[in-house]
Amino acid sequence: MGVLPLQSHDSGGRLYIVGTGPGDLLHMTPRALKALGEADCVIGNGFYLDLVMPMLAGKEVVRSSMGKEVDRASRALALAQDRIVAMVSGGDAGVYGMASIVLEVAERSGAKVAVEVVPGITAAVSAAARLGSPLSGDYVTMSLSDLLTPWEEIERRLDLAFRMRVPVVLYNPRSRGRPHNLDAAVAIARRHLPDTTPVGVIKNAYRKGEERLITTLGEFIDHFAFVDMHSIVFVGGEETRIWRDETDARGIITPRGYHRKYVY
Amino acid sequence: MGVLPLQSHDSGGRLYIVGTGPGDLLHMTPRALKALGEADCVIGNGFYLDLVMPMLAGKEVVRSSMGKEVDRASRALALAQDRIVAMVSGGDAGVYGMASIVLEVAERSGAKVAVEVVPGITAAVSAAARLGSPLSGDYVTMSLSDLLTPWEEIERRLDLAFRMRVPVVLYNPRSRGRPHNLDAAVAIARRHLPDTTPVGVIKNAYRKGEERLITTLGEFIDHFAFVDMHSIVFVGGEETRIWRDETDARGIITPRGYHRKYVY
Repeated sequence: MGVLPLQSHDSGGRLYIVGTGPGDLLHMTPRALKALGEADCVIGNGFYLDLVMPMLAGKEVVRSSMGKEVDRASRALALAQDRIVAMVSGGDAGVYGMASIVLEVAERSGAKVAVEVVPGITAAVSAAARLGSPLSGDYVTMSLSDLLTPWEEIERRLDLAFRMRVPVVLYNPRSRGRPHNLDAAVAIARRHLPDTTPVGVIKNAYRKGEERLITTLGEFIDHFAFVDMHSIVFVGGEETRIWRDETDARGIITPRGYHRKYVY
Repeated sequence: MGVLPLQSHDSGGRLYIVGTGPGDLLHMTPRALKALGEADCVIGNGFYLDLVMPMLAGKEVVRSSMGKEVDRASRALALAQDRIVAMVSGGDAGVYGMASIVLEVAERSGAKVAVEVVPGITAAVSAAARLGSPLSGDYVTMSLSDLLTPWEEIERRLDLAFRMRVPVVLYNPRSRGRPHNLDAAVAIARRHLPDTTPVGVIKNAYRKGEERLITTLGEFIDHFAFVDMHSIVFVGGEETRIWRDETDARGIITPRGYHRKYVY
């Protein structure tokens, strides 16, 4: 590896920002497990720390609350001045995770700490595997949380995304604090896609309580109660179809376009 | 795990479609390594088989050529009638990988084979980690290969994608067979984004010969020769910035929006 991005003047300390994947140790990379193993101190939200508990024996563990991301980032950089710190972040830390805020705080504070982002399996990809191949090619990743992005901006992006007529993956699709964002997103999708468009939902991918739902855009409204913050929603593109085995839905397939080139 | 999607009447055989991640065994999940370990037979394109060579001792290995994906899918399903087969696919098999064509062939042939997609780290995510946090939130994933999608359709999608003003990740950005697709994509980006927009390129992420480039949309044209088919290109969104340490570029950051909510 010739490239060592994100390095700075080495103070002896180091901060790994580690994507834990969907939450099951079987889906965490050896590189991520090794970073946890090396760390003197592991910091993260309680939900993700609990998922990697078997790796934490003998380490200093700093539990941080959801919503305290800026504090957590500052604390991790301060701790990493003179020791090895691993910050855990669900899925991949670079996708709706902790990587950006840590780097932003490092940039503003001028912290001379070596930082390494260790990639993980992001929720779009782990949930997709449980549905078959709903993404396959071009797709759009969106979050319906308006905590950090104004809702008007999210609506503007959703409109363009659904006009692409490729699959759209929705993170943070529904919470008690914002139950109607999903309704609004589906209404935007229906402007541009037919009601027969497949929709898939995976709840708790590769975790306890995993469940899935396969429906269509027109009927999805009857199933909103199924969707929560631990769910990922897939709205198909114009070529996406439900893979049926007689009457059962086996999964969702977005073809890549081999049918335009080959007979099979 | 209550959910067993993609299952069918069990013939005794089984097909794992395994995402190998960027190519380094350290970035393949234990679940993926276990699927290779269980397999009697491993099938794939030579490039990806070579990357997992240490896992193949004592197994039947079926090498298939690039461009022969339909044949490879049919062959894998036929082999999986009565044994355990693992098909390897770079990155995640569900993103520009082999999952969709295998499921399409299974659907059309009515093959009664249990199929499981084992997720891997897709190239957008592994390459992003080498740049810092260029994605962070909403983003669009596109391929510039027009082998399976008509170029006019790719241009239509690119125009909408860049109008979203979120980061856009380009897979298959440039090959000898289509050197000008990248020029056209950058011209479309420049309709909607200023020339100061950060652009990052990672070549061979986590593989031998890894290299990176950080530039801007306006200056990217001078660096097209750097880009090849083993590269991933990131075009930033309207909030993306280059993270500088004095004059050196340390990476690329797309802030998630904490600056709209907090002072830090």
